[in-house]
Amino acid sequence: MSRKLLLVSTSTTHGTGYLEHCEEEIKNLFEGISTVLFIPFARPGGISHTAYTEKAKEAFARIGIGLKGINEFKDPVAAVQQAEGMFIGGGNTFLLLKQLYTQQLIKPIQERVAKGMPYMGTSAGTNVAGRSIGTTNDMPIVFPKTFDALQLVPFNLNPHYQDPEPNSTHMGETRQTRIQEFHVHNTQPVIGLREGSMLQIRGDKMQLLGPHSTRVFLQGQKPQEFKHTDDINFLLDAV
Amino acid sequence: MSRKLLLVSTSTTHGTGYLEHCEEEIKNLFEGISTVLFIPFARPGGISHTAYTEKAKEAFARIGIGLKGINEFKDPVAAVQQAEGMFIGGGNTFLLLKQLYTQQLIKPIQERVAKGMPYMGTSAGTNVAGRSIGTTNDMPIVFPKTFDALQLVPFNLNPHYQDPEPNSTHMGETRQTRIQEFHVHNTQPVIGLREGSMLQIRGDKMQLLGPHSTRVFLQGQKPQEFKHTDDINFLLDAV
Repeated sequence: MSRKLLLVSTSTTHGTGYLEHCEEEIKNLFEGISTVLFIPFARPGGISHTAYTEKAKEAFARIGIGLKGINEFKDPVAAVQQAEGMFIGGGNTFLLLKQLYTQQLIKPIQERVAKGMPYMGTSAGTNVAGRSIGTTNDMPIVFPKTFDALQLVPFNLNPHYQDPEPNSTHMGETRQTRIQEFHVHNTQPVIGLREGSMLQIRGDKMQLLGPHSTRVFLQGQKPQEFKHTDDINFLLDAV
Repeated sequence: MSRKLLLVSTSTTHGTGYLEHCEEEIKNLFEGISTVLFIPFARPGGISHTAYTEKAKEAFARIGIGLKGINEFKDPVAAVQQAEGMFIGGGNTFLLLKQLYTQQLIKPIQERVAKGMPYMGTSAGTNVAGRSIGTTNDMPIVFPKTFDALQLVPFNLNPHYQDPEPNSTHMGETRQTRIQEFHVHNTQPVIGLREGSMLQIRGDKMQLLGPHSTRVFLQGQKPQEFKHTDDINFLLDAV
C-alpha cells in the first residue's frame, strides 16, 4: 500500500502559531505538490468554510504550498478525485464526518489515499482518518449516519490526549477511563496523541514524531507508552 | 404538568461519597416511596449492571429508601410502568441512550414522568432527561439510532460543567466553545451544571440547588450566570 499520511494531534500547540509546530513535516509530506485540497467542514468555533479556508491558505502560503478549499469547487467529488494532496482541518468531528457522508466523499478520499495521494489531518481531521470516530473528544452537535470513519488506518485515534491531572478536583471521567469504556464495546487499538505529537505513515511503516511519547490502548491490556524510537508498525496490522 | 425531577450534575463531588452531597434532595424527591427503580445502563468504567445496581442500592439504603435494578426484572417495560420512582445513574451517555431505545423504554418513562413519577438523574442520567444528548462530554463508544433523548425538559444539559482554566496550556476546545459550536446547529437552551449543582423541577417551576451558580447558553446570546435565588422558570418554556 502506498499511503502517505500525517496525522497531527493539534493544529496549534501552546505558544506557537497555527500549524507552526509541524511545518517541517508538512513540507516533507507534500514535497513536489503545488496545491493541496483543504476540507473545512469541521468549522472550529463555528466559523464559515470560507473563513476557515482563508486561515489554512495563509499558513500554507507561509510554508510555500498552494491551498484551495473544497468549498471553492462546484463538484466536490471531482475536486477530491483530482487532488494532488489533501488536508482536513480540526473542529467538530461529528459535523466533519456528517459532511463527508452527505457530500459522498468517503469512498473518493479512500481511493485517492490508496493510490498515494498525501493526506494530512489535524485534530478532527486525524480522528476521521481512523477506524471510527468513537474516541473523539467532541460534542455530538449533529447526527451522522454512522460513526465509521475513513479507515485509512486500522486503529482509532484520540487527539489532544491528556494525562490525568494529579491535583484535579474534577470528578468527570479521565481520558484514560473513557478509552477503557470504549474498549468494553470495541476491539480496535486506540492511540492517544498528546498535543505536539504526530504519526507519520508511509505504506506499512509508521513513526511517532514530536516531543512526547504516545499512549497506546489495546483491548483488555494495560495502556503502554511508546517513544519515537520504538517500533509501532504492529499497530498498522490491527484487525 | 405534574413532573417531579431532580437533575444532578455529578453523583460524587470531590471529597464526598457516592450520592452524599444530594442526600437531602433525594429524600425530598422520593418522599413516601418505598422502592426506586434503578437504570444501570450507562455502566461507568465499564462495570456490570449488577455491580452498578449494588453500588446504588447501598447508597439508597443509607438514605433509607429501597432500590431495585431494572436488570432484576424479566420485563423492563412493565418494570417502568409499575415504578414508583426512578433513578438513572451516570456513566456513558451514548450507551445509556442506546439501551433505552433498544429496550423500548423511552415512551414508558415519558408517560410515567408525565403522570408524576419522581425521576432522578446524575450525570449521563441528567443528560438523557434533556432534549438531546448533543451536549454530553462522553465519547461516542456505541451508535444510538438518534441523539434525541427523553425530553422531560425542553432544554439540553451539560453536567460536570467546567469553566476555562486561566493557566491551562491545553489547546483542546473549552466547554463554552463546544456549547457555542452546538448552537450553530441547534436552537434549544443549554444549562451548564457545575459539579455539586442540581436542578429541582416541580411541574412548571424550576430551582437551582447546590453551592454554585449555573451557566445558561441561549442561541445567539452571551452566556448568562444564574444564582439559586434567580428565577429560571423561563427555561421550562423553551420551544
